[in-house]
Amino acid sequence: MTLDAVLARIDADLPQATERLLDLLRIPSISTDPAFKADCDSAADWLVADLQSLGVAAEKRPTPGHPMVVGHVEGDGPHLLFYGHYDVQPVDPLDLWDRDPFDPEVQDTDAGQVIRGRGSSDDKGQLMTFVEACRAWKAEHGTLPCRITFFFEGEEESGSPSLVPFMEQNAAELKSDLALICDTGLFESRVPAIVTMLRGLLGEEITITAPDKDLHSGMYGGIAMNPIRVLTRILSSLHDDSGRITVPGFYDGVPELPDAIRQQWQGLAFDHGTFLGDVDLSVPAGEVDRTPIEMIWSRPTCEINGIWGGYTGAGFKTVLPSKAQAKVSFRLVGEQDPLAIRASFRKMIEDALPADCKVEFHGHGAGHASITETTDPAFEKARHALSDEWNIPAAYVGCGGSIPIAGHFQNILGTTPMLVGFGKDDDQIHSPNEKYDLESFHKGIRSWARILAALT
Amino acid sequence: MTLDAVLARIDADLPQATERLLDLLRIPSISTDPAFKADCDSAADWLVADLQSLGVAAEKRPTPGHPMVVGHVEGDGPHLLFYGHYDVQPVDPLDLWDRDPFDPEVQDTDAGQVIRGRGSSDDKGQLMTFVEACRAWKAEHGTLPCRITFFFEGEEESGSPSLVPFMEQNAAELKSDLALICDTGLFESRVPAIVTMLRGLLGEEITITAPDKDLHSGMYGGIAMNPIRVLTRILSSLHDDSGRITVPGFYDGVPELPDAIRQQWQGLAFDHGTFLGDVDLSVPAGEVDRTPIEMIWSRPTCEINGIWGGYTGAGFKTVLPSKAQAKVSFRLVGEQDPLAIRASFRKMIEDALPADCKVEFHGHGAGHASITETTDPAFEKARHALSDEWNIPAAYVGCGGSIPIAGHFQNILGTTPMLVGFGKDDDQIHSPNEKYDLESFHKGIRSWARILAALT
Repeated sequence: MTLDAVLARIDADLPQATERLLDLLRIPSISTDPAFKADCDSAADWLVADLQSLGVAAEKRPTPGHPMVVGHVEGDGPHLLFYGHYDVQPVDPLDLWDRDPFDPEVQDTDAGQVIRGRGSSDDKGQLMTFVEACRAWKAEHGTLPCRITFFFEGEEESGSPSLVPFMEQNAAELKSDLALICDTGLFESRVPAIVTMLRGLLGEEITITAPDKDLHSGMYGGIAMNPIRVLTRILSSLHDDSGRITVPGFYDGVPELPDAIRQQWQGLAFDHGTFLGDVDLSVPAGEVDRTPIEMIWSRPTCEINGIWGGYTGAGFKTVLPSKAQAKVSFRLVGEQDPLAIRASFRKMIEDALPADCKVEFHGHGAGHASITETTDPAFEKARHALSDEWNIPAAYVGCGGSIPIAGHFQNILGTTPMLVGFGKDDDQIHSPNEKYDLESFHKGIRSWARILAALT
Repeated sequence: MTLDAVLARIDADLPQATERLLDLLRIPSISTDPAFKADCDSAADWLVADLQSLGVAAEKRPTPGHPMVVGHVEGDGPHLLFYGHYDVQPVDPLDLWDRDPFDPEVQDTDAGQVIRGRGSSDDKGQLMTFVEACRAWKAEHGTLPCRITFFFEGEEESGSPSLVPFMEQNAAELKSDLALICDTGLFESRVPAIVTMLRGLLGEEITITAPDKDLHSGMYGGIAMNPIRVLTRILSSLHDDSGRITVPGFYDGVPELPDAIRQQWQGLAFDHGTFLGDVDLSVPAGEVDRTPIEMIWSRPTCEINGIWGGYTGAGFKTVLPSKAQAKVSFRLVGEQDPLAIRASFRKMIEDALPADCKVEFHGHGAGHASITETTDPAFEKARHALSDEWNIPAAYVGCGGSIPIAGHFQNILGTTPMLVGFGKDDDQIHSPNEKYDLESFHKGIRSWARILAALT
């Protein structure tokens, strides 16, 4: 059987595939920091060259931000599009990394071999699972199995500002029968999964100014309003005692979970004790009347992702600062409208502000939630292919994260997205010491080979 | 009249007195930075030599930190001690200075001539007002007017770690009838003032830990407790809606203002609109039932001096952090017990903590408030002397800041402290471009001559 030959080649080629991934990981393509602009460009060049080596007509396509990489191969059967992103998260705090984030290596750990480095899991390692599957297929067959479009983005970690305009301007070229997206994980780090429910994301940065300069708290303390006091009072009011979010109108468009999905999720027997225990917690922190799995997959959230103000160095300085700042994000579900929530959030803060304080807002992305219909037979074919590879029945699952791209494929191109990924809960994406299990990489490549065989 | 001769000599000698101060200001005696240890030593040597030139038996006295300068002259009448400090604040951010902080000069400004340079106001310029008054007295009379002890410290800007042990070990030598301290300012930059009420200070640093590592808010948001959420809720509970501080027992030992002082303060006609307007505020932020002048002088406060947690860089990162931290300080009055408040504050936070979060505390100093009785006739004599020099009735005032040395004279030596100083609100002490008005320096010297004449 030809699939067996492809899988055997994948096994044999794993050391070389790993070396290629390490090469890509050495490029510090941090999209959010302008200092790394040239590196983002280098990562795009690397991918163009790699795709060209597979016979793909690939090129770097300019945007107002970091470039897209788009490549096509012609073929019979369905037109598949594969999406991944080559940009990575910032690396601070750098002192918590055990080695240079951009000097990756394969390490032996108690839990097996891991590829350590920024982007190893999110998303360069996942992106390369598909590319390596294609490489092995091509080596055995001389061609790829069907018409495939490769579509790699370099701004996913900074809110994808160029993505929607690019998709709109190139809709005819990118429209396809199915969009394969590899940026998710295994359920409970173990069960292969197709994500069919993604939360949306709204990001807001708040700056509160009270006095117009930093003051000495001995001279002004007590009489001058402290902006940190204002900020903490406002932020602490975002959740009520039952864990509900208090922004007016926030729950408009939040659906109740359909019974069928509720039953399927109950069948997964999600162990929240283990999930939280892994990070040294025990008590679910969401709405008190919701189950833990609803909290992470189907309920909207509000998180403070960063806060700062005043003196934060060693020792003590009795400053009464001029400004206090925070970054706040909302995960959205169902029909929640990010722009309406942004407006309501800003009004809520303005209304709560003391008379002589000022607030400035800076928006960081606003994406709807998405739910994928699984009626296309390709979903069951892919699910069986994953089950075969991992020897565990694959599941349709929700995902707490936000991958706005999924909604864009649906809404702009009319293309159904299928999200399959191989990350594990302990990959520490967005954190120091990010890793990708060599098993995820290896079986991820094999999974895509099986899916390509099943769909063509 | 002999005082007139002394005052005339002070006027005539002002250029030379200013040059001497500039000499002292050129020594970068930053006490908190070990790189300037030798410079602190040089400043002490400079003062010893200068006192010796006045016939004072002065010497540098070692401590585990920077040396003390102690000098004595014998004489009839009361035994006065004069305290000042020769160390200065660090100078960063250096790029905000208009010139080298240690290359001082006299500058013409729209508001008159100023002496610009680090330490010009805090405290070298103020310290030298007393020394120059003595120099002029000695020049006219051949002797100083009474028994005087000079006591200069080199660690005031780094918390005075050696001061209490030194006072305890040398109590017999330092005990005197009155301790004159020159490290405060004019009321509203205009009215000569004797500070009789100083707030105490308690500093606390809090670290709240929820998950044991930074998490992705997409994966864990909603179910995992966010330590910034915990911290903001706790900090926002430190004040109630009326501006009162909610730490249990916090107001134990807070006295009501005596009627006599209340009436005197009303007579000062403190203009809080201007005071707050200078920093672009308008609404007093303290307890709603207290007057603005009580808020800054006689009521205890709680300020958040710094807060930090999560991602604080450019752009956005959807992290759910492991830790959130804050620095909190309390200004204390009356008989408030700093250690009891520390314990109550910590218990309040521990009690408010969700089940699986942790808190660590780090204490930063704990000092009682001090109130000086003004029953000693020396106070009225000094007040009249100041009124005569400035041609405005001098006032007994409070001070929002904390000058622990005042309490130490009272408690360790049984010596009443009298705080008189000539700084102005815009001297920018502890900030870039520190200055001391030439008027403060000149009339400060004259003020001490008048006080010496009045007390002897």
